[in-house]
Amino acid sequence: MKDMAQFADYEVGFDIPAKPGMKAADVQTPALVLDLDALERNIKKMGDYAKAHGMRHRVHGKMHKSVDVAHLQVELGGACGVCCQKVSEAEVFARGGIKDVLVSNQVRDPQKIDRLARMPKLGARTICCVDDLDNIADLSAAAEKHGTQIECLVEIDCGAGRCGVTTTPAVVEIAKAIDATPGLKFAGLQAYQGAMQHLDSYDERKAKTQIAIDMVQDAVDTLKAEGLACDIVGGGGTGSYYFESNSNVFNELQCGSYAFMDADYGRILDENGNRIDRGEWENALFILTSVMSHAKADKAIVDAGLKAQSVDSGLPVIFGRADVEYVKCSDEHGVVKDPQGVLKVNDKLHLVPGHCDPTCNVHDWYVGVRNGVVETVWPVSARGRAY
Amino acid sequence: MKDMAQFADYEVGFDIPAKPGMKAADVQTPALVLDLDALERNIKKMGDYAKAHGMRHRVHGKMHKSVDVAHLQVELGGACGVCCQKVSEAEVFARGGIKDVLVSNQVRDPQKIDRLARMPKLGARTICCVDDLDNIADLSAAAEKHGTQIECLVEIDCGAGRCGVTTTPAVVEIAKAIDATPGLKFAGLQAYQGAMQHLDSYDERKAKTQIAIDMVQDAVDTLKAEGLACDIVGGGGTGSYYFESNSNVFNELQCGSYAFMDADYGRILDENGNRIDRGEWENALFILTSVMSHAKADKAIVDAGLKAQSVDSGLPVIFGRADVEYVKCSDEHGVVKDPQGVLKVNDKLHLVPGHCDPTCNVHDWYVGVRNGVVETVWPVSARGRAY
Repeated sequence: MKDMAQFADYEVGFDIPAKPGMKAADVQTPALVLDLDALERNIKKMGDYAKAHGMRHRVHGKMHKSVDVAHLQVELGGACGVCCQKVSEAEVFARGGIKDVLVSNQVRDPQKIDRLARMPKLGARTICCVDDLDNIADLSAAAEKHGTQIECLVEIDCGAGRCGVTTTPAVVEIAKAIDATPGLKFAGLQAYQGAMQHLDSYDERKAKTQIAIDMVQDAVDTLKAEGLACDIVGGGGTGSYYFESNSNVFNELQCGSYAFMDADYGRILDENGNRIDRGEWENALFILTSVMSHAKADKAIVDAGLKAQSVDSGLPVIFGRADVEYVKCSDEHGVVKDPQGVLKVNDKLHLVPGHCDPTCNVHDWYVGVRNGVVETVWPVSARGRAY
Repeated sequence: MKDMAQFADYEVGFDIPAKPGMKAADVQTPALVLDLDALERNIKKMGDYAKAHGMRHRVHGKMHKSVDVAHLQVELGGACGVCCQKVSEAEVFARGGIKDVLVSNQVRDPQKIDRLARMPKLGARTICCVDDLDNIADLSAAAEKHGTQIECLVEIDCGAGRCGVTTTPAVVEIAKAIDATPGLKFAGLQAYQGAMQHLDSYDERKAKTQIAIDMVQDAVDTLKAEGLACDIVGGGGTGSYYFESNSNVFNELQCGSYAFMDADYGRILDENGNRIDRGEWENALFILTSVMSHAKADKAIVDAGLKAQSVDSGLPVIFGRADVEYVKCSDEHGVVKDPQGVLKVNDKLHLVPGHCDPTCNVHDWYVGVRNGVVETVWPVSARGRAY
């Protein structure tokens, strides 16, 4: 990505916030900036952990929506493939050379099913989730029409309260139906507990994950007794991966946020009561923002508001600064409390976003920085692909 | 926009949610849908109001970020031009043929100032706001370098507590400095009170706007005594335009949300205590979403979560339905309470977003619908242009 030619047509400050080779200080704001050293350390660390625990790691591509980050996770972190949430997103990863793609979600719309059934022709193993018997005939018909195979995981709702079935008999009924249907392959179970990943307390997360582990163990055992093996038993996120890794029943992790970190995740506590962004994971993702007005002595106005981030999980935190605080977010502006008036117009701040996933989804580019220089600019490849 | 040729390379469900001529029922979800009849009525109504009150209407392009909507506002609503918040956004409108563009914001970064100074060469009158004497030399130098003219409004902070100066002497000092500086033209005042637009009570909004009107009147009178005329006295939004229009001091409105409406704005009350989305303005903007799981009897899971909207101002409201309620929003899913189990998988719902501006900014396309048919698909032209 050090080839400048591909950026020839892009104007910095209009199409793109920076080009490779620029000084990091000259990046146009607001922009998403990746600390490449921190990113690589996070990816390597999770990869090593998974390997040491005999787990595959199917990284969650919905977080970054970037083919480039996904390839880094495969190459440096030993990831087996990606999961993501939408068919259009999956197509981006498959077209981008990722060979094993799970849509960790239901696919019900006829056009989306047809697209999913064509995905193996892009060279990717194609997997999706099922939580309803009525879905099976539609998936099968599309796979048969295109001469492909869709692998299916039965989704267990292990506490998130969204998609998924909640009893082992329901799991078995759907698994058997998949197994008996042409064009489809029963591939195992999906059991991701999203709601508890963000609980601060390690013990609370452990207790909630144990409920999931018990549900999954019961389902795996019952399926086995019925002659159905689970190739994939997938779940686990940045707030729970150690529980699934030591469960003796899960075999795939689906972590996403660990690679970038954010303010909301960073506040959860590890086994020793330490925030996970103070040792376990590094902040690798920042919103670079500039002061663009300081007409009031005690507040600086910065150029990153709601068009540069999502505040669903709280406001961003200013990285490495205890003297100033981001206190209010409107459409185009952030208000930074600056009681001592230390900030000047055009000063730049690094914000740790409250929630990385929907923040990445409003940007078109990641600016990868190392040693104060822009090393790479990666597109947010699947940005806006929510279909 | 009825020409299909431009869409030849786009795949529905991957690049774009629909193509002109499709049935509205076949639009791929989640997608932003515009009710073109309602949109046109809103635009016509505000245009007629402004004209009847002798006001110019400089429509706020930051809301929709669409060159096509802006042209409709000029042609059907008699708008004099657009305002927007960022230089990159202004460039999109200028390149798209809008002839009068105000960046209703400070421009401080050297590269952004340089881009702004080049904007008149795109054929657009170019205006920006100033709240700091230190900005003037930089703006002037860039205009002189490019042989152009930048018109400048002094921004008054009339209650929003962000950018802008707060006293008449400060306004006069900056106005005089602009007036005395080559390459720049003093063009008037910017006084938009954003914070009070969303107050429910008409009387509270009126009282807050009166504070702004008084500040502006004092500034205009004092400038006049100093020999400085204000070509533009701009401000006013969807929650206050009638106050500015009857102020005898403002001469330009800057309304944005009236054209699309949203759930948060819709709740504010008019003079008679009626919600403004029950008569004053119509909901023209919707997030079309599909049910993609109904594994629990009393809740339907829909495919529009945080990647399809911003929830900074509250959850979306399901249009025209009292029997179901959108109660939770996660990254990719919405949870819809369906106590009577009336929804089925693949049913579509129209959501009124909580806040239109940052919701439009996550989508790439507007799907314009009339009489059940997709009539047009417009790009969100300045999406992501936050620089």
